[in-house]
Amino acid sequence: MQRKIVVLNGCNLNLLGTREPETYGRDTLADIEALCRKTGEECEVEIEFFQTNFEGEMIEKIQSCRGNTSALVLNAAAWTHTSVAIRDAVTAIDVPLFEVHITNVHKRDAFRHHSFLSDVSVGVICGFGIQGYEYAIRKAALLTKS
Amino acid sequence: MQRKIVVLNGCNLNLLGTREPETYGRDTLADIEALCRKTGEECEVEIEFFQTNFEGEMIEKIQSCRGNTSALVLNAAAWTHTSVAIRDAVTAIDVPLFEVHITNVHKRDAFRHHSFLSDVSVGVICGFGIQGYEYAIRKAALLTKS
Amino acid sequence: MQRKIVVLNGCNLNLLGTREPETYGRDTLADIEALCRKTGEECEVEIEFFQTNFEGEMIEKIQSCRGNTSALVLNAAAWTHTSVAIRDAVTAIDVPLFEVHITNVHKRDAFRHHSFLSDVSVGVICGFGIQGYEYAIRKAALLTKS
Amino acid sequence: MQRKIVVLNGCNLNLLGTREPETYGRDTLADIEALCRKTGEECEVEIEFFQTNFEGEMIEKIQSCRGNTSALVLNAAAWTHTSVAIRDAVTAIDVPLFEVHITNVHKRDAFRHHSFLSDVSVGVICGFGIQGYEYAIRKAALLTKS
Amino acid sequence: MQRKIVVLNGCNLNLLGTREPETYGRDTLADIEALCRKTGEECEVEIEFFQTNFEGEMIEKIQSCRGNTSALVLNAAAWTHTSVAIRDAVTAIDVPLFEVHITNVHKRDAFRHHSFLSDVSVGVICGFGIQGYEYAIRKAALLTKS
Amino acid sequence: MQRKIVVLNGCNLNLLGTREPETYGRDTLADIEALCRKTGEECEVEIEFFQTNFEGEMIEKIQSCRGNTSALVLNAAAWTHTSVAIRDAVTAIDVPLFEVHITNVHKRDAFRHHSFLSDVSVGVICGFGIQGYEYAIRKAALLTKS
Amino acid sequence: MQRKIVVLNGCNLNLLGTREPETYGRDTLADIEALCRKTGEECEVEIEFFQTNFEGEMIEKIQSCRGNTSALVLNAAAWTHTSVAIRDAVTAIDVPLFEVHITNVHKRDAFRHHSFLSDVSVGVICGFGIQGYEYAIRKAALLTKS
Amino acid sequence: MQRKIVVLNGCNLNLLGTREPETYGRDTLADIEALCRKTGEECEVEIEFFQTNFEGEMIEKIQSCRGNTSALVLNAAAWTHTSVAIRDAVTAIDVPLFEVHITNVHKRDAFRHHSFLSDVSVGVICGFGIQGYEYAIRKAALLTKS
Amino acid sequence: MQRKIVVLNGCNLNLLGTREPETYGRDTLADIEALCRKTGEECEVEIEFFQTNFEGEMIEKIQSCRGNTSALVLNAAAWTHTSVAIRDAVTAIDVPLFEVHITNVHKRDAFRHHSFLSDVSVGVICGFGIQGYEYAIRKAALLTKS
Amino acid sequence: MQRKIVVLNGCNLNLLGTREPETYGRDTLADIEALCRKTGEECEVEIEFFQTNFEGEMIEKIQSCRGNTSALVLNAAAWTHTSVAIRDAVTAIDVPLFEVHITNVHKRDAFRHHSFLSDVSVGVICGFGIQGYEYAIRKAALLTKS
Amino acid sequence: MQRKIVVLNGCNLNLLGTREPETYGRDTLADIEALCRKTGEECEVEIEFFQTNFEGEMIEKIQSCRGNTSALVLNAAAWTHTSVAIRDAVTAIDVPLFEVHITNVHKRDAFRHHSFLSDVSVGVICGFGIQGYEYAIRKAALLTKS
Amino acid sequence: MQRKIVVLNGCNLNLLGTREPETYGRDTLADIEALCRKTGEECEVEIEFFQTNFEGEMIEKIQSCRGNTSALVLNAAAWTHTSVAIRDAVTAIDVPLFEVHITNVHKRDAFRHHSFLSDVSVGVICGFGIQGYEYAIRKAALLTKS
Repeated sequence: MQRKIVVLNGCNLNLLGTREPETYGRDTLADIEALCRKTGEECEVEIEFFQTNFEGEMIEKIQSCRGNTSALVLNAAAWTHTSVAIRDAVTAIDVPLFEVHITNVHKRDAFRHHSFLSDVSVGVICGFGIQGYEYAIRKAALLTKS
Repeated sequence: MQRKIVVLNGCNLNLLGTREPETYGRDTLADIEALCRKTGEECEVEIEFFQTNFEGEMIEKIQSCRGNTSALVLNAAAWTHTSVAIRDAVTAIDVPLFEVHITNVHKRDAFRHHSFLSDVSVGVICGFGIQGYEYAIRKAALLTKS
Repeated sequence: MQRKIVVLNGCNLNLLGTREPETYGRDTLADIEALCRKTGEECEVEIEFFQTNFEGEMIEKIQSCRGNTSALVLNAAAWTHTSVAIRDAVTAIDVPLFEVHITNVHKRDAFRHHSFLSDVSVGVICGFGIQGYEYAIRKAALLTKS
Repeated sequence: MQRKIVVLNGCNLNLLGTREPETYGRDTLADIEALCRKTGEECEVEIEFFQTNFEGEMIEKIQSCRGNTSALVLNAAAWTHTSVAIRDAVTAIDVPLFEVHITNVHKRDAFRHHSFLSDVSVGVICGFGIQGYEYAIRKAALLTKS
Repeated sequence: MQRKIVVLNGCNLNLLGTREPETYGRDTLADIEALCRKTGEECEVEIEFFQTNFEGEMIEKIQSCRGNTSALVLNAAAWTHTSVAIRDAVTAIDVPLFEVHITNVHKRDAFRHHSFLSDVSVGVICGFGIQGYEYAIRKAALLTKS
Repeated sequence: MQRKIVVLNGCNLNLLGTREPETYGRDTLADIEALCRKTGEECEVEIEFFQTNFEGEMIEKIQSCRGNTSALVLNAAAWTHTSVAIRDAVTAIDVPLFEVHITNVHKRDAFRHHSFLSDVSVGVICGFGIQGYEYAIRKAALLTKS
Repeated sequence: MQRKIVVLNGCNLNLLGTREPETYGRDTLADIEALCRKTGEECEVEIEFFQTNFEGEMIEKIQSCRGNTSALVLNAAAWTHTSVAIRDAVTAIDVPLFEVHITNVHKRDAFRHHSFLSDVSVGVICGFGIQGYEYAIRKAALLTKS
Repeated sequence: MQRKIVVLNGCNLNLLGTREPETYGRDTLADIEALCRKTGEECEVEIEFFQTNFEGEMIEKIQSCRGNTSALVLNAAAWTHTSVAIRDAVTAIDVPLFEVHITNVHKRDAFRHHSFLSDVSVGVICGFGIQGYEYAIRKAALLTKS
Repeated sequence: MQRKIVVLNGCNLNLLGTREPETYGRDTLADIEALCRKTGEECEVEIEFFQTNFEGEMIEKIQSCRGNTSALVLNAAAWTHTSVAIRDAVTAIDVPLFEVHITNVHKRDAFRHHSFLSDVSVGVICGFGIQGYEYAIRKAALLTKS
Repeated sequence: MQRKIVVLNGCNLNLLGTREPETYGRDTLADIEALCRKTGEECEVEIEFFQTNFEGEMIEKIQSCRGNTSALVLNAAAWTHTSVAIRDAVTAIDVPLFEVHITNVHKRDAFRHHSFLSDVSVGVICGFGIQGYEYAIRKAALLTKS
Repeated sequence: MQRKIVVLNGCNLNLLGTREPETYGRDTLADIEALCRKTGEECEVEIEFFQTNFEGEMIEKIQSCRGNTSALVLNAAAWTHTSVAIRDAVTAIDVPLFEVHITNVHKRDAFRHHSFLSDVSVGVICGFGIQGYEYAIRKAALLTKS
Repeated sequence: MQRKIVVLNGCNLNLLGTREPETYGRDTLADIEALCRKTGEECEVEIEFFQTNFEGEMIEKIQSCRGNTSALVLNAAAWTHTSVAIRDAVTAIDVPLFEVHITNVHKRDAFRHHSFLSDVSVGVICGFGIQGYEYAIRKAALLTKS
């Protein structure tokens, strides 16, 4: 059976590459999608790519992954630090989660040091730029292969 | 005049019965709705039943209850712990609130021990399973009768 | 076999109905006992009703319930917030606990927001007035029936 | 070139004037809009006025202001205290922000004393009633003139 | 009508004068009782004097003062810092409370700096030795005279 | 009757315009006084303008406003964060207070985020530069007119 | 040798009796001085009475008591909670201190629950109204007699 | 002179061996008493053994040890974490204290990590099972011999 | 010029694969070294691999990397949470750092949630198993190439 | 098979008996070793005795105990409060740990009240002087016998 | 040009040498002034020496140093821990600050461990007795020479 | 008898002058040693100078100073904030300690604001650059002379 990895992007990530490039770099969300799809091909997994600025849409997207998805790669952006609802959506479906942040959140505001997702993730990667997505897909593919 | 009690269900509760049954039990949202309607009939109150994964929809639903609703029975799920917006919607309309949680939140994560709703509720019931809804409706019906 | 539910009332609850009626309402402990007994009859469970102002008596009463009681319904009043000893008595006997408060403790002093009992209870109900006792008995009866 | 100031209103502000008038006063959102437009005319700036109960809509509205807006005047209501997402939307676009609250938040619940917006604002005004909007527009007009 | 002031002494105060005299001084509980009675005579109030090491007895003694007592003078000793039950007994009866400590609690262990009684007292006096009782009685007599 | 608004400036504000201009701007206290007087004329209120580096003088100035002043506009500078004495002076006289800070204190040291004045003020304005004074006078004039 | 007790009153106490009478009562500072002098006569101690709104004057007054004063009775008002300088002045001279507050500070703002003076006082009395001064003088006279 | 060591057992310890054996083991209080008496014989000290569920009885038992007891061995159970009264009883009599817990309290609830007794004890032993009592007696016997 | 990446392993990592395999997995340090060397070959960077149980050796190893190393990949194990000394060694040399943890530290003890290294790292990866090393090398190679 | 108990002593314990005898007593490390060996003989266990001032040596010593040691008796001295590395070494090998402190750490600096070892120990003993070692060996011998 | 160093002494330092000599030593302020002047001569800097018990005077003295002073040596005594106003005065003028305390503040009350001055100072010296002044002058002279 | 002052330098100080010169300046450890020796000559004390990156070596060096050293001058660098072991070594030997930091630690990371050494030092000096060593030696020489 074909494996599928769903890559989810939270609020404001649609602005990537244009928003505060000194913080977030110049890669756009399209660049990330391209990298994810290329990585998916190399790892022989299907990639679905999604972004929303609505928490409700994110929740329903996560819910929809139940039973048909090998792994979630989630950059929840600001919601990382505030949304129990997204955490609950993730734990409600039985799909392993990888938490990704493009920047190193530990160098930023104190309120970004806590994540409601980390302790329900398989792993967390931050500060690796857009490669964080690539490596999360690679690891997810490895895990779901075995 | 016919009294109406509005039963509101927050994010991820649409998954009930299938999501983590060891935590939330096997009753579905439809089971809860049935129990609420049956209780409503016994108490001679009209029951409206609602679920959403969008905070904005919840806020507007609560707003719409002003002036036509005897009581709110609200299981705000994850939003209980994070949403000042829902709290403000509740206090903005002059309708008594009953806070319900299916599970005993005090046995779960520390961040679930605080509720932005409890101190603006008439009462709080948790860990009583789906009967929490029934008893909240019964109490609300009692209160609004007098 | 006849099931028995023991309803326990802690310190100062003997004053109920006369003490700060704007906070606790006008129902007396005798009213609560009558409601409990009536509910017990409806649910076909034996009701034992008890009040004490001595923590030691409460502990020994709880201890005496081991092996002969289906459920405890406990309004520990002020001890809720201070007594590890009562918590330990409850966990020492293998009987499910329902925690009841007549008032909504979340609207009161901050030190009343923590309970040493909640995380060892099946469920917690507060702010439902004397109906909190009724519903706890109903739920306990349901649970012990199955 | 015509300057534009966008006035943004968060959750539950559509109820203004009817909701808790002893706290929020009797002015409605329409009154505020009228005052903002009148002030805009006096200051020779275009005024856009917006309200939503959906955080996602607020985020996308803020995003849409990039490159065509002189200043934001934002009353984020309850989201002030909980939404990192709105903060991130604001910092993602290069437009100066003025934070407005109709009431004096320092007289209210402790959780209203922290704002995720204040340290990314030019200025903060609270407790000035609907004049807070007027003065924020005046100051924004002054700033963007120079 | 003859006025009555009840002087209540908590746990371990029966040891006074013999226990840690460098901390508590050499006056015994009998000395305090004598001083209280003498002060009562001067102020023309009846004095009742009581000591117990059982919190339950203290609670029931306080309860018994309802309706027949002008004021309570209470040295709750260790219970000051731990007993919500005694606080609740005091607030349950409508009798003004004066809190007395023989030593200056602010010079002692940090856990003695918080009192569950101070904010439900008329006044608090500590470090005045046994005169703290005398002055509390004098003030209570003054208050109940007017 | 002629209305009077007293504008009070705390410690070190005499240095304004010369002190850390990158933080406080280049406007001097004389510029502020001029703006206040001009605003006073427009609003038809008398303006009294005062600065001191002595807390005692500030206290006595505030006390002297009782019974002859419509409103206080107070920039307490460093004392904002440390002086209960000034807070008590303000609450001791029955005159509405407007708290002004030239800079946005929320962008500065953490100890500047707390104010002993905010919760006894009508409103607070910060980060609006010297216009903060103008707007406070305008609002005060509005309030005292009605 | 004639004994002298110096009664010191801090900031804003000159307003006593007129300021917030529902909190501080209707007794003026002159009433307190009269009561202190009368008590001094009864106790055969000289009374010096002092009030200032300047911390510096209070410090120097305290310093001047060294070597010629039997005891200080100090109502430091707001400075109680903020002034290490007054604490240091008190500990610098070898004169016993009695801390007095007219109101029960434990019923008021949380920041009034901490005193920089209590642990360097002989005793603390609050909520006894102006009698707090009288009793402090009486106790001080007793102590210095022996 | 015959030395006496008093072994004191607090609330719920009468249930030992039957209560949560996976936590507390299968030894009963009678087993502990037997071990204590055997150890006492070996060490040539008299053993008195006591258990109560009433804090008041514990306090009075401790008080009664003054002047006739070489050492206290105290397992205060739940009271360890809540009772200042027992701490005060212990410090009031001049008898060295050994604090014993059968289980390793550091592996249990956070509220069990603080003891009101440890800093007034000679030593503390936990997690050694019933041998904790034996070793406390042995050490006490050693100390009181020298 | 040949680029070199130094892979550093802290205390107890020599036990890897044998120590708590349910937590750390069954891969040994030799397996990690092999993976690192293979990755290095693919990325055309020289790999140096090091482990020590002495903080002093780790510090001196890090110091020795100055001027000859393209990047550090550091799994500091327990020292992550306690060693300012290693942090200072890292910041003292001008070499980019990648922080690696095999397990997801956010699922473990609270004291493992803080790292003295994260805010001086380029990026942090945890819970990716031994692939964490591989990806850190890959990213480091990418960065140092450009 | 011969059982072996390894007794480990951390930093500065080589100074024992000479260092601060009023705190640590006059027994030297040699005295402790003699007592341990004598106790070992009585309990028929082999005793290995070790001290180091290097955390790295302690870690490697602990690691070396895997598979050949019945129990560890560890006085980690200052490292108790700071070393996650030693904790990890202990949990990495499958050998039961007994934590010993000669003094009663609860009577000393607040930072000595937390131990990184207690919750991974079988039991903890402090304040029993050098007998703490003896009793830990006795208990360990008992446990490993069964 | 002649360089000038201003030595500033805060509240209660006029009592030095007589006040608590076991804490502050027996050197008087005159002794310190003499040492400062002698050091000034050796370093070829003019010394101005100042003491006040009024915060307002200290602020204005500091303000007066702008533009004519090479460095401030400031022993702010109690104000160190409470005065944001003095901190602001120091940062308002562009003169390097050296913070001096005669005693080692870290050995004293916890509230003396925080200074509002340290992070705006060049350096801090405490516990060096009156030599702290000398060394601060020496270092200031060195700095201003270069 | 010749007096000896031992100057101890902790981890990473061997890099001084090359490491982060904008923070630590350009003076090397050799420069400091030269300054110390020159100061020693002027003060007629023998100087021993030592640096290590191993906490164990530092502990043993400190231990070796017992009985032959007049004073320790210790720059513990990162260990200042984490090492109870070094603190214990210092207090174990009866030699006065002077704590030195080249930089002003109060301007740096929050975790550098706490020192485990300050309250067991005679004095602390920071931010004085390498002169901090010189002045500590001078003061130590003064103290040990008397």
